[in-house]
Amino acid sequence: MSTDRITIALDVMSGDEGVDAVVPAAIETLDKHNNVDLILVGDADAIDAKLADHKSDGRIEVRHASEVVTMDDPPALALRGKRDSSMRQAINTVKEGAAQACVSAGNTGALMATARYVLKTLPGIDRPAISTAIPTVSGHTHMLDLGANIDSSADHLFQFAVMGSVLVNAVDNLDEPRVALLNIGEEAIKGNDQVKEASRMLKESELNYVGYIEGDGIYSGSADVVVCDGFVGNISLKTSEGVAKMIAHFMREEFKRGLLNKLSGVIALPVINAFKKRIDPRRYNGASLLGLQGIVIKSHGSADSFSFQRAIEIAILEVTKNIPNQIDSQLERHLVSS
Amino acid sequence: MSTDRITIALDVMSGDEGVDAVVPAAIETLDKHNNVDLILVGDADAIDAKLADHKSDGRIEVRHASEVVTMDDPPALALRGKRDSSMRQAINTVKEGAAQACVSAGNTGALMATARYVLKTLPGIDRPAISTAIPTVSGHTHMLDLGANIDSSADHLFQFAVMGSVLVNAVDNLDEPRVALLNIGEEAIKGNDQVKEASRMLKESELNYVGYIEGDGIYSGSADVVVCDGFVGNISLKTSEGVAKMIAHFMREEFKRGLLNKLSGVIALPVINAFKKRIDPRRYNGASLLGLQGIVIKSHGSADSFSFQRAIEIAILEVTKNIPNQIDSQLERHLVSS
Repeated sequence: MSTDRITIALDVMSGDEGVDAVVPAAIETLDKHNNVDLILVGDADAIDAKLADHKSDGRIEVRHASEVVTMDDPPALALRGKRDSSMRQAINTVKEGAAQACVSAGNTGALMATARYVLKTLPGIDRPAISTAIPTVSGHTHMLDLGANIDSSADHLFQFAVMGSVLVNAVDNLDEPRVALLNIGEEAIKGNDQVKEASRMLKESELNYVGYIEGDGIYSGSADVVVCDGFVGNISLKTSEGVAKMIAHFMREEFKRGLLNKLSGVIALPVINAFKKRIDPRRYNGASLLGLQGIVIKSHGSADSFSFQRAIEIAILEVTKNIPNQIDSQLERHLVSS
Repeated sequence: MSTDRITIALDVMSGDEGVDAVVPAAIETLDKHNNVDLILVGDADAIDAKLADHKSDGRIEVRHASEVVTMDDPPALALRGKRDSSMRQAINTVKEGAAQACVSAGNTGALMATARYVLKTLPGIDRPAISTAIPTVSGHTHMLDLGANIDSSADHLFQFAVMGSVLVNAVDNLDEPRVALLNIGEEAIKGNDQVKEASRMLKESELNYVGYIEGDGIYSGSADVVVCDGFVGNISLKTSEGVAKMIAHFMREEFKRGLLNKLSGVIALPVINAFKKRIDPRRYNGASLLGLQGIVIKSHGSADSFSFQRAIEIAILEVTKNIPNQIDSQLERHLVSS
């Protein structure tokens, strides 16, 4: 790992928890990584108060921003109406080169629109995509797009595949990540035209394309990169959250039915906790906005400090691996050869 | 409940388990419902052998069919190349009026194509939809379409909504089922044009339309009918299966780590089994092909006899409630008023 110094900008204000989540996450990050400096962007008074007498040895810079993008702000309002928002200013630090990446828990639409406007996409990328790691039976996989794009064309799906493959190659040290296209399995109706055409393109590419998978294949560990349209990916991811919540709810209820069940629940508690930890979505916090000329990591809006810190870790990893440059060079190669 | 006699045709051959699943399910059905007669369609020798000396008192008729549609047969082959398949003949009994419904565990594409060709759609329905009940935190909901249609238009989504509402009104005795449209939540990109237009149509309709829900809303119990395009619905349903399988896998693993965990697993076993029973997908077997001039129920291909019997129960319920007629009259009303 490089010992070069890295600077990450944190949008302190946009998430549900604001300073309460971001400042402790920042302090923990400095403890963990002695080559990392941070720019905390937001209400300077609130940040200073939360930092209190924490000694950052000059490794934290506070940048005041007078506005906050709310979770409900439409992207157009965030972009044009709130030019001094913590979100916009955090992205600006990346544009200026003051930071190599930024992390925000703000609303996805606003973050995507602002990042795209300020940083621009890489040559050959029509639209950025949102990618995140999700657990599987045998480890984890990366899925994209998760909601930045709807009605994606075959070209878009192909670009997502290249970006996902580059990302996984770099962050998971996998030589040839297995790339799969998310599709439905019924013969009559096997896929829409975009998916079929993207499959044809991927077969001819140098990517390690392993074909179609269905929804249940996402979690089986049979692919390292799962490519899909953003509408489909977003529904799939949110559906997964819903199922996990329902199962947890049922489990709690069963362990509450009568004294005997409660007792067995107490005895099984360490196991249940270990199990819960394993599927804890907070551990998987941090989605990458791929395809931009810069690194932007989206944290879950309701992230606590543990969870926000995970998103910062992803930013650090992507800076270390220089993801945008790698996507740029790989994409050129693939677009030339395809 | 009516005491009129009901006849259900069973496609004995098309599922993975064939006679081994369907014949025991048939016998159990006769035990449970003394107003139900059955037509068992398939290889007469195999069926007779499995029936052995079961006394059906004339309530089982065996109809020989010389061909079987495999799980991999393309719909066109099933439709044109296998006219004497058990699937086709089972559907024919509904067309002829010999049975009021049929149940098949055969491949969805072939079943949909054959049913549509033989039975035709109801007036005002462009394409049939696949609907099934799925568990939620507070009971269950019905979701459609689950894969019969891709690239559904706003009109199609509206038709799905009407069909789903009629179905739930009848089978769950709900006066005004809450109908929701599945959508994504990001402001920038809130829905595609089809979903937005369908939402507008639903707002103006007499249906109890409750607006958009996201993927996690499916399982929260906030809607009785969840309407979506078949590509999206199929991915969402299969994703759910994948998550549930992964969680079960992790739970098994955790309870195996060391003697203490194994012991607590044994103690917690009754609770875990009660929990597993609650989310057992076999209990939810049986999807309705809605919008046809007749009742066709699709069983999961790998259904065992317990599971296949659940699908027969749905067929009986839909016959009792006369679902196609109800859809027909409701649709007319909604299309006139919209």
